[in-house]
Amino acid sequence: MPLGSDIRLWGIMKINNNYLNLKDSYLFSTIARKVNEYKSANPDKNVIRLGIGDVTLPLAPVVVDAMKKASEEMGIAEYFRGYGEEQGYAFLRKAVADYYSLKDVDFDENDVFISDGAKSDLGNILDIFDVDNAILVPDPVYPVYVDTNIMAGRKIAFMDGSAANNFLPMPDDDVTADIIYLCSPNNPTGAVYNREQLKSWVDYAIKNDAIILFDAAYEAFIADSTLPTSIYQIDGAKNCAIEFSSLSKTAGFTGTRCGYTVVPKELMRNNVSLNKLWLRRQTTKFNGVPYIVQRGAEAVFTPEGQQQTRDAISYYMTNSKVIADTLREMGIWFCGGENSPYIWLKCPDGMSSWEFFDYLLANANVVGTPGAGFGANGEGFFRLTAFGNHDNVIEAMRRFKNLK
Amino acid sequence: MPLGSDIRLWGIMKINNNYLNLKDSYLFSTIARKVNEYKSANPDKNVIRLGIGDVTLPLAPVVVDAMKKASEEMGIAEYFRGYGEEQGYAFLRKAVADYYSLKDVDFDENDVFISDGAKSDLGNILDIFDVDNAILVPDPVYPVYVDTNIMAGRKIAFMDGSAANNFLPMPDDDVTADIIYLCSPNNPTGAVYNREQLKSWVDYAIKNDAIILFDAAYEAFIADSTLPTSIYQIDGAKNCAIEFSSLSKTAGFTGTRCGYTVVPKELMRNNVSLNKLWLRRQTTKFNGVPYIVQRGAEAVFTPEGQQQTRDAISYYMTNSKVIADTLREMGIWFCGGENSPYIWLKCPDGMSSWEFFDYLLANANVVGTPGAGFGANGEGFFRLTAFGNHDNVIEAMRRFKNLK
Repeated sequence: MPLGSDIRLWGIMKINNNYLNLKDSYLFSTIARKVNEYKSANPDKNVIRLGIGDVTLPLAPVVVDAMKKASEEMGIAEYFRGYGEEQGYAFLRKAVADYYSLKDVDFDENDVFISDGAKSDLGNILDIFDVDNAILVPDPVYPVYVDTNIMAGRKIAFMDGSAANNFLPMPDDDVTADIIYLCSPNNPTGAVYNREQLKSWVDYAIKNDAIILFDAAYEAFIADSTLPTSIYQIDGAKNCAIEFSSLSKTAGFTGTRCGYTVVPKELMRNNVSLNKLWLRRQTTKFNGVPYIVQRGAEAVFTPEGQQQTRDAISYYMTNSKVIADTLREMGIWFCGGENSPYIWLKCPDGMSSWEFFDYLLANANVVGTPGAGFGANGEGFFRLTAFGNHDNVIEAMRRFKNLK
Repeated sequence: MPLGSDIRLWGIMKINNNYLNLKDSYLFSTIARKVNEYKSANPDKNVIRLGIGDVTLPLAPVVVDAMKKASEEMGIAEYFRGYGEEQGYAFLRKAVADYYSLKDVDFDENDVFISDGAKSDLGNILDIFDVDNAILVPDPVYPVYVDTNIMAGRKIAFMDGSAANNFLPMPDDDVTADIIYLCSPNNPTGAVYNREQLKSWVDYAIKNDAIILFDAAYEAFIADSTLPTSIYQIDGAKNCAIEFSSLSKTAGFTGTRCGYTVVPKELMRNNVSLNKLWLRRQTTKFNGVPYIVQRGAEAVFTPEGQQQTRDAISYYMTNSKVIADTLREMGIWFCGGENSPYIWLKCPDGMSSWEFFDYLLANANVVGTPGAGFGANGEGFFRLTAFGNHDNVIEAMRRFKNLK
């Protein structure tokens, strides 16, 4: 028995009260309500949604074939697979490590953990850190970074993104943090850190003994070869960063669920290997990703799979370009859109995020996402996404131009 | 901003030191090493494994067909599915609720949460409870209950299972606990609580304002219709229990990953709905089970799927009966085996768990699991499982009898 069985317990059942500090998010439910109201009142209007953060193209044929084959294997005794390794099958960890080697980043396959997606791992990684650590989060931000820390009762400070810094906040030597969230290409702003900027963050983290949680879920959308697609392309990052990535946007896996997290064996804190802590967390609280899904993910990393998934990304990036070109032509400030499926624009004429939402819905029948939903610094900004149908994007941008 | 951005952070990066209190488990690695050593020294011997806790029969045809069809859908634009609801598709939650109605338990489909397996949810559910709650765990026990609480730094007390109580510990009014783990049919002992016993636990939980975490992962193995297959068959349980179940053993999903957790809307603590807390946890830290897997799980609950999965369970239960009959004939004390795939026996001649392991391996070439690996009270006991090949089970029992 790890703890004495002779202790008499005393207790009053208590829920985790930190949950009561969470704000309810009405962002997407409010959008849905407003859109439904508008459509009911205007049944003849063709409303185009450019707010969706989900992919729309189907899975690549090579992925479908791999999953069908794996499904069949599971029905045959000699090929059936029961429990796999919690950290993922070696065939997929190896495929991910090989993918990194194309980025000039070398990993052992044991540095790679296969997961059911970046969202799960970004939340669960906090298990291995003390509750007393101080958290630094950009604003605007993917709400999961904030909410998962509020749930654990951690102190959070925000670093300000703004048009002045192109929504790429940089280290502030007056602020000491233990855990730093970076997302590049960013959700919601589409902004991408360059090598020099990421180097500043790595240097800051090492100086402060901090850990960077680097969300690279949109790395596949980076077309500019001078921009880093992994934080490990920066010297020193293996000693201060954990990287999270996903096939959700890369290969349309939002409903198929597979991602990967890299915890380099070099990464130590308090003389303890974070790789070993995370392995212990995952072997205790997780049982791995379905075999069928791992075979589908493996197919993504084949030459054929890379070609097919790149085709889908090109489709989305063509949409991005149409949106970015329109905004540029109209003289509207924006970031993102060139190496990201997200376009983050300043609402024209000083409108607030929700004022512009209503204006755009009523006058162009186009739906986007109010920036205020991503944090205080998002007020006055607006997110469009490139995940829609190409013809709809062209039509939406035609309507945009007519607003002038 | 939920928390002030003006605070200056101070911190020294700290890992979660509770992880350092975890004991390394060498149980299955030691077994593997001993078996490999024996086989190397005795290459002519046919070693039979009756220690495996994983299923061996392939998935049911109806499940394979459903997953192949769903894989195909994912490759066609008009049928493609992106993000689903984090708590699972309504079609599957409805199928689970209907399955419960066959047990005379009525639920709203919103009481049901689809998960990637009971192990994940049993660990993650602790998120919604305060760290100061006192935990009560049976010994012997599935190690995940203990380790997940050690990771969070919670106080744990053990309740003793023994041959005297047939490894079914009952409430002790001198002990006050906030969270109580029950597993019935039990892993590792195979013991099953009857209605009267579970009623005592429900009454105790209500009296102490405690929550029962009820692990029903092996419910499908209960053949005796007088035994409860869900804690909600006991009056009052909806006010004090969360139930975890899984298709891992029911339908061979150990490598396909799908389970379900029920948090009744009646379940409140501190005036807060635990259903709402768990929904918030899952929507923040989880993104749902793959669509393909949920379609496979749905197929399990069809009449055809029930027939096919019941056939597999019958196969395993025939193995259980062969083992139980042999032990009974030999006069060896055991529990389980009748409504469970696990058989928990007292090592003969006062041998320790590991002494019997070595003896059995050397003299019968049969591998089991030493009970000491599941807690102090497991010492002197031994676990056999029914998940093996039928002919091997018969041969193993023939050798057992020859040991006399």
